[in-house]
Amino acid sequence: MTDPARLIADLRSDTVTTPTPAMREAMAQAPVGDDVYGEDPTVNELQAEVARLTGHEAGLFMPSGTMTNQVAIALHTRRGEEVICAEGSHIYEWELGMMATFSGVVPRFVPAPLGVPAPEDVRAAIRRSIHQSPSGLISLENTHNKAGGTVIPLDVLAGIRAVATEEGLPLHLDGARVVNAAVALNVPLRDVTGLFDTVSVCLSKGLGAPVGSVLVGSAAQMRQAHRYRKMMGGGMRQAGVLAAAALVALREGPTRLAEDHRRTRELAHALVNAGFDVNLNAVQTNIIYAAVPDAAAHAARWTEQGVLCNALGPDSVRFVLHHQVDDEALAGAIRVLTA
Amino acid sequence: MTDPARLIADLRSDTVTTPTPAMREAMAQAPVGDDVYGEDPTVNELQAEVARLTGHEAGLFMPSGTMTNQVAIALHTRRGEEVICAEGSHIYEWELGMMATFSGVVPRFVPAPLGVPAPEDVRAAIRRSIHQSPSGLISLENTHNKAGGTVIPLDVLAGIRAVATEEGLPLHLDGARVVNAAVALNVPLRDVTGLFDTVSVCLSKGLGAPVGSVLVGSAAQMRQAHRYRKMMGGGMRQAGVLAAAALVALREGPTRLAEDHRRTRELAHALVNAGFDVNLNAVQTNIIYAAVPDAAAHAARWTEQGVLCNALGPDSVRFVLHHQVDDEALAGAIRVLTA
Amino acid sequence: MTDPARLIADLRSDTVTTPTPAMREAMAQAPVGDDVYGEDPTVNELQAEVARLTGHEAGLFMPSGTMTNQVAIALHTRRGEEVICAEGSHIYEWELGMMATFSGVVPRFVPAPLGVPAPEDVRAAIRRSIHQSPSGLISLENTHNKAGGTVIPLDVLAGIRAVATEEGLPLHLDGARVVNAAVALNVPLRDVTGLFDTVSVCLSKGLGAPVGSVLVGSAAQMRQAHRYRKMMGGGMRQAGVLAAAALVALREGPTRLAEDHRRTRELAHALVNAGFDVNLNAVQTNIIYAAVPDAAAHAARWTEQGVLCNALGPDSVRFVLHHQVDDEALAGAIRVLTA
Amino acid sequence: MTDPARLIADLRSDTVTTPTPAMREAMAQAPVGDDVYGEDPTVNELQAEVARLTGHEAGLFMPSGTMTNQVAIALHTRRGEEVICAEGSHIYEWELGMMATFSGVVPRFVPAPLGVPAPEDVRAAIRRSIHQSPSGLISLENTHNKAGGTVIPLDVLAGIRAVATEEGLPLHLDGARVVNAAVALNVPLRDVTGLFDTVSVCLSKGLGAPVGSVLVGSAAQMRQAHRYRKMMGGGMRQAGVLAAAALVALREGPTRLAEDHRRTRELAHALVNAGFDVNLNAVQTNIIYAAVPDAAAHAARWTEQGVLCNALGPDSVRFVLHHQVDDEALAGAIRVLTA
Repeated sequence: MTDPARLIADLRSDTVTTPTPAMREAMAQAPVGDDVYGEDPTVNELQAEVARLTGHEAGLFMPSGTMTNQVAIALHTRRGEEVICAEGSHIYEWELGMMATFSGVVPRFVPAPLGVPAPEDVRAAIRRSIHQSPSGLISLENTHNKAGGTVIPLDVLAGIRAVATEEGLPLHLDGARVVNAAVALNVPLRDVTGLFDTVSVCLSKGLGAPVGSVLVGSAAQMRQAHRYRKMMGGGMRQAGVLAAAALVALREGPTRLAEDHRRTRELAHALVNAGFDVNLNAVQTNIIYAAVPDAAAHAARWTEQGVLCNALGPDSVRFVLHHQVDDEALAGAIRVLTA
Repeated sequence: MTDPARLIADLRSDTVTTPTPAMREAMAQAPVGDDVYGEDPTVNELQAEVARLTGHEAGLFMPSGTMTNQVAIALHTRRGEEVICAEGSHIYEWELGMMATFSGVVPRFVPAPLGVPAPEDVRAAIRRSIHQSPSGLISLENTHNKAGGTVIPLDVLAGIRAVATEEGLPLHLDGARVVNAAVALNVPLRDVTGLFDTVSVCLSKGLGAPVGSVLVGSAAQMRQAHRYRKMMGGGMRQAGVLAAAALVALREGPTRLAEDHRRTRELAHALVNAGFDVNLNAVQTNIIYAAVPDAAAHAARWTEQGVLCNALGPDSVRFVLHHQVDDEALAGAIRVLTA
Repeated sequence: MTDPARLIADLRSDTVTTPTPAMREAMAQAPVGDDVYGEDPTVNELQAEVARLTGHEAGLFMPSGTMTNQVAIALHTRRGEEVICAEGSHIYEWELGMMATFSGVVPRFVPAPLGVPAPEDVRAAIRRSIHQSPSGLISLENTHNKAGGTVIPLDVLAGIRAVATEEGLPLHLDGARVVNAAVALNVPLRDVTGLFDTVSVCLSKGLGAPVGSVLVGSAAQMRQAHRYRKMMGGGMRQAGVLAAAALVALREGPTRLAEDHRRTRELAHALVNAGFDVNLNAVQTNIIYAAVPDAAAHAARWTEQGVLCNALGPDSVRFVLHHQVDDEALAGAIRVLTA
Repeated sequence: MTDPARLIADLRSDTVTTPTPAMREAMAQAPVGDDVYGEDPTVNELQAEVARLTGHEAGLFMPSGTMTNQVAIALHTRRGEEVICAEGSHIYEWELGMMATFSGVVPRFVPAPLGVPAPEDVRAAIRRSIHQSPSGLISLENTHNKAGGTVIPLDVLAGIRAVATEEGLPLHLDGARVVNAAVALNVPLRDVTGLFDTVSVCLSKGLGAPVGSVLVGSAAQMRQAHRYRKMMGGGMRQAGVLAAAALVALREGPTRLAEDHRRTRELAHALVNAGFDVNLNAVQTNIIYAAVPDAAAHAARWTEQGVLCNALGPDSVRFVLHHQVDDEALAGAIRVLTA
């Protein structure tokens, strides 16, 4: 990391946000208990609140989005099955083979231009032959991180929901940034999340909580998820201290995301005007991928100048906006990047 | 849980402790960063401090003792191997088959009267035939929970260390309550922990932190452990809020454990005097198992009367002391239990 | 192996038998097809015949008893569950952790004096707490190899069947030597095998086929088993060449087992008369364990003298009878062993 | 299967071949022993012969190509790693997720036009970041089944070998049809197989043995492979009866493959002349894919007329030649297919 004194904007990820004063205060005051016994009132409140907002029966708090996703994969599959997912899905690219190591399943990829798989391609990926791995789960990601924070349109979601129902397959959503998607679509969160059997909702990305994700689904599924969470080491004791901050994030966060999206568009246009190669169609929420030769060298130089960013691939730099990049920081970042 | 107004003492486990005011304050003030990038200064401080205290090169913070143990098992083994451990070990009894599901390994049990396996029995459990699973790891638990918080004597530890070294096998310690062991032995922590290749140290049991354990070992092992932690979903973002409380627990906790052990002996003697069947030889730290017919019914009645405890088996009730049971609470508990 | 010219009797195992002339002839004549397509008529005939003899709906041919057992474990369990089995079970002792590596499950042992677990001990081993691995399967072994080829009495089998039914758990039999058990009990095979949900029947031990075991159960289970067999690499092509020999073994074998048992008793009595420590109560079929100090040295010396046998443990030598040890070979072996 | 009386040619796969009289005779005469003890002389002879022909130190016989491939994956990888392989590889498409269930690893695909991956694409697929699954193995398939039996040119193999060496990654070959590749390239087998760390050689496809594959590599690797083979249930007893047939296949087979390739080219040209859409560039060995609308219906009709073939995908029919399709059968098949 660069010297904090020279930091203009940390655009590496929306995971770098630190707790707000309101979160710190909530953590200091939260009533807590032993959540392994189900006795932490703040965790219980958070789980109920996320379930309500997403239109599901129950929720289960976990330390990361990777854990909520991988518990969901374990819930829905048996060993040797395939998980149908879009190319570049986080559950494959950034969850280090956990679907194989824990659940014994392999991915089956569907093309996804701008992160959006077509319902008919999902259907075509389903396997039934006794000579092949049977399909066990369809898993979507919305927004789609690697495609640039892109949003799956509601009619596409409905189409894939119909395929899943017709084929008798469960449907999971990696909702690491699903609140961004709902904000971009300008619909209530449950209009997106209610279409799925289970949803992983991350509270520590754009929403800004220090730690945590919630998996939602039926009460019966969450009882089973409790066991898988414990197996993975996600049974925490007085987790209410984290849940308290997450409840604040849930209240404060969504309204701030629209601002993040506005600033992201501003940055994208500034980059294009300065001659960068950015696909503006893909800039739908809080992420920008710019095609930059020698990406690592560029990212290192900008970081040195106070604008932290990541090279993702040899010719691609990613910029991610979040609530700790305000208009002034944005202006500073634009100056550095377009100098 | 019973009505808090009537609560006299919660003796179910030392995991039920809630954060002290000093921990709350530390959480409110802690500098934090994105620990997945290794940038959380409070997490880094905690890891270094636990490594120093245990006599190891490096540490890695995780949300639970189950995760630290299971990451260690993954570090040391290859699929299809055996983990030599004492009968009744937590890694088998309470970690829900994770050694099999994640690491693909099975347990090989060694007899352990009062929780103490003999070095020669450990040696006899080693397998080398090509027709059998090869031994991959020796894992001890100290204190041994299921045997009643019993302590492994230092000369037995040294004997098992010698077997491991001679046989070329790694040696892990489930140190969920290893600070209790060092306190009971009246030696510095590192005299116990330094004998092992890796140690899992829990901060949320008797030490009282809300959440967290630290795995210690070599720096190279911790780099590998980082990957397994991420696979299990233990990569947390601004985890410094938890580490801050854990640092307080590490400072405050050990001195309080001697008090817990004194009160445990008092309770044990009071139970024996009242006619309970308690093996006083097994009462070495902060845990008591009393043989009680109809254990579940008794535990329910005592809980109703304000003394929370767990039946573990049909004829056995467990009482666990911790810093939130002071002398007054102890006296109240004794009144109820011996009435 | 010793010089064949000096071989008196190979008592290492009943797996060492070589195909009889009738088997060789059957292999040369068998109609075959591609069994991965289900088109090998000889395999189909064998599967139907074993299903009929065992009182089950369908069968599936595999290259080994380890594979039939491990496919059955996969059929009945989900990851993280426990397999209740007798101490010393082959599925744990000699199948190299496959239950963990493939199915992600761990064993839960039940005491088994003379290889016979008590129904109430099986019931007591069942786990239901959300803090523990749930029980997924009860698996028996009959005859029990490590206990000395001992037979589980029919009333004990019925008692364990009742526990399984009451608790809603599936019941599998490792029938590596179940035909020996039926012969010893003097009942039709199906009286033993019909009590189980699935049974692994080995054709290459006492029955004498060169290669192969058959798993039996419901037709729906065998369709699922087909997939697991293929995953493990047990999908063979023109497997009818093996099935042809196995059909001969099935026809010739059972009548020969009674002879093996008679000779085993003769050898056991001869050993006892010569001062060996043999538990005659355990000598129920074709296996003898003799307590012998320096077992490895003794086994090596006897092998050198033409009587091949294995040391199993530091103080134990095992002798196994089979159809290629006739009365003359037995007399020779007794001379060497009691010299 | 169609009525055998009406069978003209079975073009479904080269796995459908039945043992020749010479193989039957060899099976009837072969000296055998217990291969689990390493005592089957015919198995030992086969293993040594395949090792010699492929330029490797040692070999291990197994019941299928799936098992040899999956044992190799287990040998080279640790849980959570990636296996770099060409799109459409058999180890992923037709081995039912075994790489995930047994070894806990996931595939990482490389583009492979005509089944040939470019060395630089292999290099670009290697992962080193601690946030991603590390690469554990590069696995090629030659000839590439799904691409149409296509051959990887020797200079491409050398390029990928160089990448593997530079990057310190092991290199495995799925050689289900590697003898076809060597015949097509007109080089000794070892010129292809000697470039790899391990090779799976199938004896029951074009070579015509009823059952079996051999894995080759170093002697140390084969000792480790022995354990994984046993775990998967591939430890067979008197497996010499299969090895005897495989030895005949190894002697007779290669010379016949050139004939298979010639007939395949004839069929491909006949199909093109009749207006079928066949990519003649992909017809390099014994496999033809023809683009046919309503593939399943066409395949069913041709099968009904005595020419057995498989639809692989909605618009694709596959024809595979082998030694049991002679010139007369070929002429008959062409008459039916071009009618």
